[in-house]
Amino acid sequence: MRKFLGITVFLLATTSIPTQSQTATKSLAERLGYARDAKLVIVHADDLGMTHSVNAASIKGLESGLVTSASIMVPCPWFPEIADYAKAHPEVDFGLHLTLTSERVFYRWGPVAPEDKVPSLVDSNGYFHLNWTETTRIDAKEVELELRAQIERALAMGVRPTHLDSHQYRLFENGKDIFQSVLHVAHEYKLPVFMVRDWFAERPYLESSMSPNDLVVDHTVTIEPGVPPEKWNDFYTTALKNLQPGVTVFIIHLAIDDEEMRAATRERDTWGAAWRQRDFNYFTSAEFRTLVREQNIKLVTWGELAHTAK
Amino acid sequence: MRKFLGITVFLLATTSIPTQSQTATKSLAERLGYARDAKLVIVHADDLGMTHSVNAASIKGLESGLVTSASIMVPCPWFPEIADYAKAHPEVDFGLHLTLTSERVFYRWGPVAPEDKVPSLVDSNGYFHLNWTETTRIDAKEVELELRAQIERALAMGVRPTHLDSHQYRLFENGKDIFQSVLHVAHEYKLPVFMVRDWFAERPYLESSMSPNDLVVDHTVTIEPGVPPEKWNDFYTTALKNLQPGVTVFIIHLAIDDEEMRAATRERDTWGAAWRQRDFNYFTSAEFRTLVREQNIKLVTWGELAHTAK
Repeated sequence: MRKFLGITVFLLATTSIPTQSQTATKSLAERLGYARDAKLVIVHADDLGMTHSVNAASIKGLESGLVTSASIMVPCPWFPEIADYAKAHPEVDFGLHLTLTSERVFYRWGPVAPEDKVPSLVDSNGYFHLNWTETTRIDAKEVELELRAQIERALAMGVRPTHLDSHQYRLFENGKDIFQSVLHVAHEYKLPVFMVRDWFAERPYLESSMSPNDLVVDHTVTIEPGVPPEKWNDFYTTALKNLQPGVTVFIIHLAIDDEEMRAATRERDTWGAAWRQRDFNYFTSAEFRTLVREQNIKLVTWGELAHTAK
Repeated sequence: MRKFLGITVFLLATTSIPTQSQTATKSLAERLGYARDAKLVIVHADDLGMTHSVNAASIKGLESGLVTSASIMVPCPWFPEIADYAKAHPEVDFGLHLTLTSERVFYRWGPVAPEDKVPSLVDSNGYFHLNWTETTRIDAKEVELELRAQIERALAMGVRPTHLDSHQYRLFENGKDIFQSVLHVAHEYKLPVFMVRDWFAERPYLESSMSPNDLVVDHTVTIEPGVPPEKWNDFYTTALKNLQPGVTVFIIHLAIDDEEMRAATRERDTWGAAWRQRDFNYFTSAEFRTLVREQNIKLVTWGELAHTAK
């Protein structure tokens, strides 16, 4: 999640230019058995494992049938709760939300790998850096070590991930070496990485690093801080009414606006408790369910995409 | 907290037998400026840092003036929140609740020291063992390493501890080597360790390991699973009306009975969300405040004791 090509995804209207290989071969939609102009949507909840509030809301979203996929933060304190749920519900589409930052001020976490093996990833107190800035020097080898540790813990605790993605998009936004680390790991575990064709123009290393068999979705939509609370539903409704053909991933953040979530996110409102409650309200609403039907949107999962790609 | 000499502390009525040194020198109460038969009480909240719910309730308890002291779990996810509070409130009596077990099933934590430096302390997934059993082999050198790491993180993040104690009493109940590890560290940092004269009879290594200058309180009271919820207040009221002379430490566990706390403790009721809400209700009540006055109880802190011992 977060701020990736913020303006582009906010405007939504960018049309991807088909590449030579795209026009010559079947589109992802066609490979899934749909028409070339079908509108396929993955409704994807991020940040599972972060708090109990996030877990509880995301499980409700998934069980409503309107949220089709989610990804889990292995280093977080509530990972055991969601791992237990994933193990008991192998039919639910869970990926791993690979996490190398601890983001929040009053509630924090650190690496799964031994801290002394990943010194560039932690601050002086042993937590993941809150975020990466221009002065944070990250060692791509340590990134790879930590990603493997996260995947191994998930597998050991019964999660069978369908895909990988990246908390705060750190693995995609921070240069070729770090992106290649995640690709190495993804190829090793035979898992697709969340990657969007619309991102290639701004960061050419993304496309050049990928191999021909890597899965690429067409578009993504995520709400950004510019949207006032009273325009929340309008934003999503407009996005759904203006979908482009192909596979679009809606990246959403679900939680209950309760004491735990308010405390965990209290240093700023963005992606905070109220934000996440608004996402929860919209994506479990009758309004959203009706729009999906009216717009002839096909809700799909990462598992279906990955299966098709093989 | 937990089950230490459960029956003895539950019965409460054991009278300590004064040792030669005690009769020859001033008692702890006298050294604090009170009469030899004065009834001094530390009302001590355990487990701060465990959840936001525990932090919020414990801060309310401390700010009521009726809870006089508390101790903090450094490895826990909400440690940064309570460290921030401790740093901003240096007048509040905080110790460190040294933690080597993760206790709960769906919400867990691991060591502060690099995991590969303390292999005997962690399970196959890298978390602290839920608890230590007879088959858990714990390396006392690793215990010492981890305790230093917890104290160093606390100091680095602005906590100025007045004392040390032990989550689930693991450091006291598991033999001489492990108890000596905590004493080494306590002496190095010049901090008193929670130690009760009433415990010596059952575990002689506790007394024999201590040096003459180590602080020892007289009695402790903690509620145990045998007490039904409707008898909660009676238990504490009886204990307060039957206090022995000297320093008695009430070990209590405060939290709000909310979604986070219920989820974090849902695998069993003992020391669960409702238990902790009952403790909170009693120790912030007018009933308790009145009893303290009527019984001529002096509420004291670990800081006062430690200052006196010097």
